[in-house]
Amino acid sequence: MTPAAPAYRRLSVEERRSQLLEAALTLFAHRAPEDVSLDDVAEAAGVSRPLVYRYFPGGKQQLYEAALRSAADQLRLCFDEPRQGPLLPRLGRALDRYLAFVDEHDAGFSALLQGGSVVETSRTTALVDGVRRAAADHIHSHLGVTDPGPRLRMTVRMWITSVEAASLIWLDEDKQPPAGELRDWLVDQFVAGLTVTAARDAQTAELVRGALTAGT
Amino acid sequence: MTPAAPAYRRLSVEERRSQLLEAALTLFAHRAPEDVSLDDVAEAAGVSRPLVYRYFPGGKQQLYEAALRSAADQLRLCFDEPRQGPLLPRLGRALDRYLAFVDEHDAGFSALLQGGSVVETSRTTALVDGVRRAAADHIHSHLGVTDPGPRLRMTVRMWITSVEAASLIWLDEDKQPPAGELRDWLVDQFVAGLTVTAARDAQTAELVRGALTAGT
Repeated sequence: MTPAAPAYRRLSVEERRSQLLEAALTLFAHRAPEDVSLDDVAEAAGVSRPLVYRYFPGGKQQLYEAALRSAADQLRLCFDEPRQGPLLPRLGRALDRYLAFVDEHDAGFSALLQGGSVVETSRTTALVDGVRRAAADHIHSHLGVTDPGPRLRMTVRMWITSVEAASLIWLDEDKQPPAGELRDWLVDQFVAGLTVTAARDAQTAELVRGALTAGT
Repeated sequence: MTPAAPAYRRLSVEERRSQLLEAALTLFAHRAPEDVSLDDVAEAAGVSRPLVYRYFPGGKQQLYEAALRSAADQLRLCFDEPRQGPLLPRLGRALDRYLAFVDEHDAGFSALLQGGSVVETSRTTALVDGVRRAAADHIHSHLGVTDPGPRLRMTVRMWITSVEAASLIWLDEDKQPPAGELRDWLVDQFVAGLTVTAARDAQTAELVRGALTAGT
């Protein structure tokens, strides 16, 4: 006889880990890292403190770093966008997902970008730089550019940084303007930035004439 | 009888302090803070290690912070520009001074912006945020705006952040393009950013029609 599935299923190691990270992220999203204890995480996840330690023997610092890494991974997922259809709506959809992430994680997003106070800064910085590089790679790839020159790269990275700045200000300003308006504004800033660079760079000029406007 | 002035004048407290900070900044500009010792600073300034300690009893951390603060003060000075003549050349001259600072301090500038590894990060961040706020205030003031609305403020802060990003990339890329070209590019990006915002914001639209183009 096959036993009936238990009403209360044990979580797998991966599931439990994700659950703890999600609980930690939510806490870090609303409080400064130094104001979050492992007891808080255990309570939020409905588990015992020893169980949190079993998963994160390095304690709070390890948990904090893992939570940041998980946030970084989620951010990368925002950039996943099929390579079909006009370019600017693709950028708009990626920005929608990104802004939804910013909206949901709020203070946790600021903590991720501005570096925590309990964790070694260089590692947080490396994590965030990895996300920035991933964003830039996605943009180059969608633009159909395999060998971006220095001016195009600088333009794309300037835009990515200004999107981060806009997100932090947006959180400071009670999420005004509405996300949809901010998204359109950021897409327009992207086009404007590339257009300025196009006047100085043949590769960018070709993009502005071609891929960027095709099908829009 | 009046004694003849000594051939070797003792430095005043302020002069000595400045000399030590300048030596420290130069060292931090070429090496990571953790690779700079107080002995190095003493040697670079041609003084004894106890004298460095007399001025900075908190040791390396205090010296590092003071050097960053001095760099931040120097950066603020870059923004000082008479309120006369067309606006964009004023912005260009401020950028020239800023890029000269970046050029001169190089790795020290990156250290200032990215936070050091020996100093408490929140204090470095507050220092840099102060410089950013000063830059934004200068821009609003030159634009003749006393009460900048959220969209204008966000646009200005996005541009300031993207200038920082451009500076760091510029250092990474062996200072290419030449400073003069980068300056013009950044000024054009400023105008393009405001122009995009002008389509959504009456206050910015008025600036783009008026102050920004007057006399150019």
